[in-house]
Amino acid sequence: MTDQVVQATSTDRPRSVDAELRRRARAVIPGGMYGHQAAGSLPAEYPQFMRAGRGARIWDVDGNEYVDLMCSYGPVVLGHQHPAVEEAVQAQTALADCQNGPGAVMVELAELLVATVEHADWAIFAKNGTDATTTCVTIARAHTGRDRILVATGAYHGSLPWCTPRPAGVTAADRIDIGHYTYNDLASVVAAAESGPDVAAIVVSPFKHDAGFDQELVDPEFARGVRELCDRIGAALILDDVRCGFRLHLGSSWEPIGVLPDLSAWSKAIANGHPLAAVLGRDCFREAAKSVFVTGSFWFAAAPMAAGVATIHALQDEGAIEVMDRIGTALRAGILEQAAVRGIEVNYTGPPSMPYLTFVGDTRHQQASAFAAAAMRNGLYLHPRHNWFISAAMTEADLAMALVATEEAFTAVHAP
Amino acid sequence: MTDQVVQATSTDRPRSVDAELRRRARAVIPGGMYGHQAAGSLPAEYPQFMRAGRGARIWDVDGNEYVDLMCSYGPVVLGHQHPAVEEAVQAQTALADCQNGPGAVMVELAELLVATVEHADWAIFAKNGTDATTTCVTIARAHTGRDRILVATGAYHGSLPWCTPRPAGVTAADRIDIGHYTYNDLASVVAAAESGPDVAAIVVSPFKHDAGFDQELVDPEFARGVRELCDRIGAALILDDVRCGFRLHLGSSWEPIGVLPDLSAWSKAIANGHPLAAVLGRDCFREAAKSVFVTGSFWFAAAPMAAGVATIHALQDEGAIEVMDRIGTALRAGILEQAAVRGIEVNYTGPPSMPYLTFVGDTRHQQASAFAAAAMRNGLYLHPRHNWFISAAMTEADLAMALVATEEAFTAVHAP
Repeated sequence: MTDQVVQATSTDRPRSVDAELRRRARAVIPGGMYGHQAAGSLPAEYPQFMRAGRGARIWDVDGNEYVDLMCSYGPVVLGHQHPAVEEAVQAQTALADCQNGPGAVMVELAELLVATVEHADWAIFAKNGTDATTTCVTIARAHTGRDRILVATGAYHGSLPWCTPRPAGVTAADRIDIGHYTYNDLASVVAAAESGPDVAAIVVSPFKHDAGFDQELVDPEFARGVRELCDRIGAALILDDVRCGFRLHLGSSWEPIGVLPDLSAWSKAIANGHPLAAVLGRDCFREAAKSVFVTGSFWFAAAPMAAGVATIHALQDEGAIEVMDRIGTALRAGILEQAAVRGIEVNYTGPPSMPYLTFVGDTRHQQASAFAAAAMRNGLYLHPRHNWFISAAMTEADLAMALVATEEAFTAVHAP
Repeated sequence: MTDQVVQATSTDRPRSVDAELRRRARAVIPGGMYGHQAAGSLPAEYPQFMRAGRGARIWDVDGNEYVDLMCSYGPVVLGHQHPAVEEAVQAQTALADCQNGPGAVMVELAELLVATVEHADWAIFAKNGTDATTTCVTIARAHTGRDRILVATGAYHGSLPWCTPRPAGVTAADRIDIGHYTYNDLASVVAAAESGPDVAAIVVSPFKHDAGFDQELVDPEFARGVRELCDRIGAALILDDVRCGFRLHLGSSWEPIGVLPDLSAWSKAIANGHPLAAVLGRDCFREAAKSVFVTGSFWFAAAPMAAGVATIHALQDEGAIEVMDRIGTALRAGILEQAAVRGIEVNYTGPPSMPYLTFVGDTRHQQASAFAAAAMRNGLYLHPRHNWFISAAMTEADLAMALVATEEAFTAVHAP
C-alpha cells in the first residue's frame, strides 16, 4: 500500500446551482450550514443541497445522480418515496395533520410498536431522536429519584447541552450528573457506577458507532452484564436505538442477543423519513412516564404517525431487514475483494446494513476523504467520517453501480 | 352573578369512537395521553382524538363539527388545509423531503425570514419550539461565556428539564443557572440580574400568556427597560416568539413598540402546522451560532420549509394579521356584550387574536370549565385554561356560529 493520497481538487460534475446556493446561504445561515448536514468539512465533490430521491437513487440540485449509501443519515430505510408510506401520508394529510388532539392513528401506531418491540408496554411520541433520549433520561430520573446517568465515552446521544459533542454553550451544570464508561468494557461500567452517587440510568447504543472511528459490535457478555448491573443497582437500562432501530432487527436491537432494555429511544427510520421519534418502555416505568411533562407543538401530528404504521408494515411485508442484510453483505464482500486485489489494508466494520470503511493508518481521514470524493465523482453517495446506511430499496443494479464506483474510488486512493 | 355552576355531566354529541380509542390508548400510552393535548383533565365534552380540519372548522373522530378557536394550540394560523401551503408541501414532497442535505428551499426560507423580521440577520431551523428556545440559550451562553439565564416566573418556554413546568425527573443542576423575575416589573429584572453571577441572557415572552391566568400585554416601558438592561450588562435579549410569532405582527412581536431582541425563538405558526422551528439572530451573534452544535435528523427536511415559505407569503397576501385582529376584536365585543347583558363579571385578556376568558372569582376554573363544556356542546372548540387562537380562516359565518355557542355557554354558566 502506498502512502500517496490523490487529493481531489476538482470535479467533473456540474456544481453551479449548488455553488450559488452556498453563496446565498453564507449570508443568512451561520457558517453557511450547521449540524450534521453541513458539507463545508467534506470534499469539494459533495453538494450541500439536494433536489430529489426515489428508491436508492438521489439527485443533487445540479442534477447529478447518486446511489444513496447514507439514506438521509438513517431515516430512509425503505428508500425514498416509498409508495405505501407516501400513500398513507397523503391519505392522512388530506384529512388533517396537526390538530387539537392526536388522530386515531396514534393509538394504532402505539399498539403496533408494543406488538413489535418485545420490551415495550407503552409508547410516547416526539419529533427528534434527542427528544427521545432526553425523555428516557428524565423518566429514569423520575422513576429512581436519582440524578446520575452513565454514557459511553464518545457515544452520540443527541445535540442538547447534556449530550452534544461540542462544548460551545454547554455549562458545567449541564454535565455534572453525567458519568462515563468504555463501550464493551463491563468493568468500566461497574467502576463508573461505583465512583459517585447512585445511578438513575445507564445509556447504551446497540453497537459502538461513534462517528469517524471503526465500529464495534456489542459483546453479548457486555450487554448481559450491563443488564444485570442495572437490575442489581436499581438503575434503568436505556437503549439508544435512534440510529439502529428497525435496521438490524424488527424489534429493539438487542433482542437477538436476548437483552431487553427498560426504556428505548427511537427516531430516524421508524417513519421512513417523516419526522417522528418514540420512547418505548416497560410497564414498571409507566407511572414515571405519566409523571413527567414532555410535549411539543407537532408531537401529536397524525401524518408522520401514519407514515410510521405504513413503514412498520412495509418492513414486515418486504422482509426489509433481510434485504438490507443481504445487500449489505454483498457490498462488504465486493469492497473487501476490491481492497484485497490492490493490497490495500482496510477496516470494514459494523453490521452489514450499517457499515463503515477506514484505511489502516489513515488517522486524519485523508485516504477516506479521497475515497469518498472519488465515489461521489462516480455516482455513489457515502460519507468519509460517518457510518453508511443500506436501504431496503437497493437493487442488484444499484449494488453493481455502487461497486463500480468503489472500484474507481480504490483506484483513486491507490494511485500506482 | 350566581355561585351556582352547572356541571356538565353528559353530552348530546356522540362519543363512542373517542371512548373506544381512549380505552385502547390507556393500555399503550402512559396515562392514556401525555403533554398539552391530554384531554383527561378537560370536561367530558372534549374529545381526545380528532379526525379532520378545513379552514376554521374541525371534526372529532365521532364526526362532531366545531368552529376552531384553538388552531392546534397555535400552529394553524391560516386555517386547516390552506390551499397554497398544502400545494407547496405536495410539490416539495413529490421531489423529496428528508435528504442527505437540505433543499434549495432552505435558503429561500432563511432569506425570507431575514427580509421579514427586522432584527434577523440569519436563521437556524429545528423542529420544536423548545429546540428554538434552548438553542437561543445555548448561543447566548457561547457568546457571553456566562451561564446564568433569567426567565419570568410562571412563563412557559418549553418542556425540557431546564424549563418544563412539572418537576418530575428534573434535577437541581438542570435549574441551578436559572434566575427569575416578574413579568412587566423592571425592578425585579434588575434585582434578579444583580442577585447572582453575570447573566448570559434574559428570556422574555412578547406578552404574559401563562396558562390558566389572565393575560397581560407588555408594558412598552418594561420592554425598553429590559433591552437597555441587556445592553448595559452585556446579556442577550431572547424573545420567545414561539406562541405569538406571526400572529400579532409580520415580524418579531415587539417590533410595533420598537424593541428588537438579539435572538428570537419561533415555531408553531411559521409553517401553518407543518413541523418547523427557527432561531433568528443578529449579526453579532453569528459567530456564537456557528460555534454551537445543534442538529436533528429531520431539521433539514424540505417539505416543512416549503410550507414556511408559502405560509409567510400567504400571511402577507391575505393581510392575515389584520383579518385575525378584526375577527378577534369582533369576538371580544360579542362575548363582552353577552357577559354584560347577564351581569357576569369576566376578564377578557390578551391581544384580540389570542384572547383568554376568565370569570371573576373563579379561582378553580369551575365556571371556565362549565363555559367551555357548553361551548363544546354547541360546536365551539376553545379551552378553559389556555389562551385561544383566532385563525385568518375565520369567516363572518364562523364568528356568528362562535357567538351563538358562547351565548349558550354563558347561559349554562349563569343558570338562573
